[in-house]
Amino acid sequence: MAKEEKEFVKEITPRSQDFSQWYVDVILKADLADYAPVRGSIVMKPYGYAIWESIQAELDRRFKATGVQNAYFPMFIPESILSKEAEHIEGFAPEVPWVTEVGKEKLPERLAIRPTSETIIHYMYSQWIQSWRDLPVVLNQWCSVVRWEKATRPFLRTTEFLWQEGHTAHRTEEEAEARTLQMLEVYRSFVQEHLAIPVIPGRKTETEKFAGAVRTYSIEALMGDGKALQAATSHNLGQGFARVFDITFLDSDGQLKHVWQTSWGASHRLIGALIMVHGDDRGLVLPPRVAPIQVVIVPITTKKAKDEVLERARQLAQDLGKRFRVKLDDREEQSPGWKFNDWEMRGVPLRLELGPRDLAANEVVLVRRDSGEKISVSQTGLLDVVAEVLESVQESLFLKAKRFLEENTRSVSSYDEFKRVLEERRGFIRAGWCGESTCERAIKEETGATIRNIPLEGSEPHGETCLHCGQPARHVVYFARAY
Amino acid sequence: MAKEEKEFVKEITPRSQDFSQWYVDVILKADLADYAPVRGSIVMKPYGYAIWESIQAELDRRFKATGVQNAYFPMFIPESILSKEAEHIEGFAPEVPWVTEVGKEKLPERLAIRPTSETIIHYMYSQWIQSWRDLPVVLNQWCSVVRWEKATRPFLRTTEFLWQEGHTAHRTEEEAEARTLQMLEVYRSFVQEHLAIPVIPGRKTETEKFAGAVRTYSIEALMGDGKALQAATSHNLGQGFARVFDITFLDSDGQLKHVWQTSWGASHRLIGALIMVHGDDRGLVLPPRVAPIQVVIVPITTKKAKDEVLERARQLAQDLGKRFRVKLDDREEQSPGWKFNDWEMRGVPLRLELGPRDLAANEVVLVRRDSGEKISVSQTGLLDVVAEVLESVQESLFLKAKRFLEENTRSVSSYDEFKRVLEERRGFIRAGWCGESTCERAIKEETGATIRNIPLEGSEPHGETCLHCGQPARHVVYFARAY
Repeated sequence: MAKEEKEFVKEITPRSQDFSQWYVDVILKADLADYAPVRGSIVMKPYGYAIWESIQAELDRRFKATGVQNAYFPMFIPESILSKEAEHIEGFAPEVPWVTEVGKEKLPERLAIRPTSETIIHYMYSQWIQSWRDLPVVLNQWCSVVRWEKATRPFLRTTEFLWQEGHTAHRTEEEAEARTLQMLEVYRSFVQEHLAIPVIPGRKTETEKFAGAVRTYSIEALMGDGKALQAATSHNLGQGFARVFDITFLDSDGQLKHVWQTSWGASHRLIGALIMVHGDDRGLVLPPRVAPIQVVIVPITTKKAKDEVLERARQLAQDLGKRFRVKLDDREEQSPGWKFNDWEMRGVPLRLELGPRDLAANEVVLVRRDSGEKISVSQTGLLDVVAEVLESVQESLFLKAKRFLEENTRSVSSYDEFKRVLEERRGFIRAGWCGESTCERAIKEETGATIRNIPLEGSEPHGETCLHCGQPARHVVYFARAY
Repeated sequence: MAKEEKEFVKEITPRSQDFSQWYVDVILKADLADYAPVRGSIVMKPYGYAIWESIQAELDRRFKATGVQNAYFPMFIPESILSKEAEHIEGFAPEVPWVTEVGKEKLPERLAIRPTSETIIHYMYSQWIQSWRDLPVVLNQWCSVVRWEKATRPFLRTTEFLWQEGHTAHRTEEEAEARTLQMLEVYRSFVQEHLAIPVIPGRKTETEKFAGAVRTYSIEALMGDGKALQAATSHNLGQGFARVFDITFLDSDGQLKHVWQTSWGASHRLIGALIMVHGDDRGLVLPPRVAPIQVVIVPITTKKAKDEVLERARQLAQDLGKRFRVKLDDREEQSPGWKFNDWEMRGVPLRLELGPRDLAANEVVLVRRDSGEKISVSQTGLLDVVAEVLESVQESLFLKAKRFLEENTRSVSSYDEFKRVLEERRGFIRAGWCGESTCERAIKEETGATIRNIPLEGSEPHGETCLHCGQPARHVVYFARAY
């Protein structure tokens, strides 16, 4: 390896040395995003935004398959509307930016920039919904929202962030609960299948639920440093907002009733999860389904064989481009070694090398980003081989992350052991909990760990006791320190 | 026609009676949008948003084919950055909303909500661009922006609006001008081919150009009431912003130089144009390429033949759904006649009727929204026939709009005639102009007409004189009253 190349790779802080710095290094070096001149804000650069476009396209497709329609509501919410639901405004008020003037004029009423859009959307629903025939209403919007958080971190917690928010209204409580769980399942399957990130679906505790919800569900993932990340949430809002915003419908039995509601969202923090679940010391590792570039072709030219190699490389790029997202790196000013490092850092799942000897043998060299495995394969039938390898990379990344999650999920028998695991190895800790928020809060204050969720499966206690108070456990839950 | 149906159609004010009211009626009745509880703002409802999604998808595809990449920049622009370019801030200042506080805290510096993003994007470009190898930078973002306009109108001029804004940086002046014209051509071909709206591409006068641009180009369309609408703009920014934001690069000759820049945008006002160019007294008329629903299937059931008709209708919906965007309207509570009116109002290009007699004859009835023409065709080979009819509707709508534009474009020989045409018939008026902004302003004040643009073709004078001062014309230009 030439000196220049070694230095190039060295620019990324090793994960083991400083995970936080490694994370930021990957974001900046792989050109995913940059810091913006607004507190806690980032600019999503083309490579990062292309990942977001892939997330959007696939999630949107899965939403629409369940009957979701997209719409767009204003970013401004008048103070009187944002303040209508008491718990909701209490939860968001400290983080809300207010527009107070336009040009040189003071506004008669302050306008909030949306932290989430329940209030303004429900205000409209109260006008649109009259009869049971108008139900269900199942809308989603792709937009940005703003929350002025104290500690910010690119993709994970930024002042402004890109997300989608779904908002529904239903005729019955059962239908609303079914939609809440249906969307949780959409998130679970999307995150596992498209992003290759294993998650634990479950219900949030009363303390951790959304401001204004009856029940909040989440999917929780485990990052490479053993901290958990809430990857998406789905809320059953009950009739709370419906009462406050007076969203009623005439049912077929002639009765005027309040609707039952849900909301659910996922944001660009999923990109943060991708980095922290799959990345390594060489940089980003992207699952093929979400990778903006799935195959990079690096021609290895000699003075003698330059034209032929380049011509064949272009032909391969064109052929592969019919089925895959392909990039031909024919920059002349960079060496092949430099390019290898560069594309590895950017997480491209598969590299295809083509030199004069490969050309003569009608072969190419394929190098997997995840394992570094290198194989020579025939150019004949290449598309099918590439498809297989990409599928295999997708599967391997998921299995590797799943193994990591399993190996870093521990059951503990005492509070001391709980604290020791948190200090030494982090990860998820399965433990009994009495169901009281006093214990939950005490654990959080004493250890920094929160209950991530009460899992949909396996939360039934079998003789466990509460980690903190020793009373019989009501649920077996997942604890972790979290982003 | 039953009484109920007649009343239903009557709800839309006739175009000839009150074009403005007709426009708003169509938007509200066709469920494209609704008024929001924020001054001058609308909610885009699913049907309107689906049109926007089609516009986005097709325009985005055409952008990317020219090398455009998407990115995302923050909506907040610190006052110090927005104010850097003098003409720019002067142009936008009166319309800018300011965030002055967050929660209960005053901000140290006011943050503008972006009216457009030249300033914050150029601020980032100054950090990203170092060498000629970094050029060109050709980025676009899809987002919403805010301008606090005095008179608002759904889709055409709203406080917050959805749009895309492209921002580029180039090595040479020629390359920037070529990109400016290339994007104008992307807009022209997109609007004509996808939206079936004929436009006049040309250059804006000094008075009408974008705040901070060297040259602004536009495409101008003619609405059904004879008023013009600027459908998209493309700006050559020269080096003005580059100097202010210090965007320099080291060229291959070793010299440090300022980049040359462009910006270009189109917004959801294109939906307003669709309504006003193609709509009629029955409501919306959508060109098939942009229509969220291209074919609506209305089964006409009798008690005896209900199941068979519905089953066949479902089968047809499935078959047609493979190639077209299809809706089966099998609502039981509405009559076929009611449905016909409803889908006509919503502008669905093609209606397919299927009754017991059609079933027996292996036929369906096709009814075109644009002409009302009704034909019986065989169910065998239906997909190809539907494809042909939709193509024909697309073409007819464009030709009809083109004829309207041509018939409403007049050359005048005197200022009196000019004023008479504006009063009586509006439309575009081709006339000579001396090139002085004094004449341009006087005409605007006296008649309300502005120079829409100096057309790319045919602006060379052949003996014409200026409409206002009588001096030899420098250009032959298009005048109109405009939205």
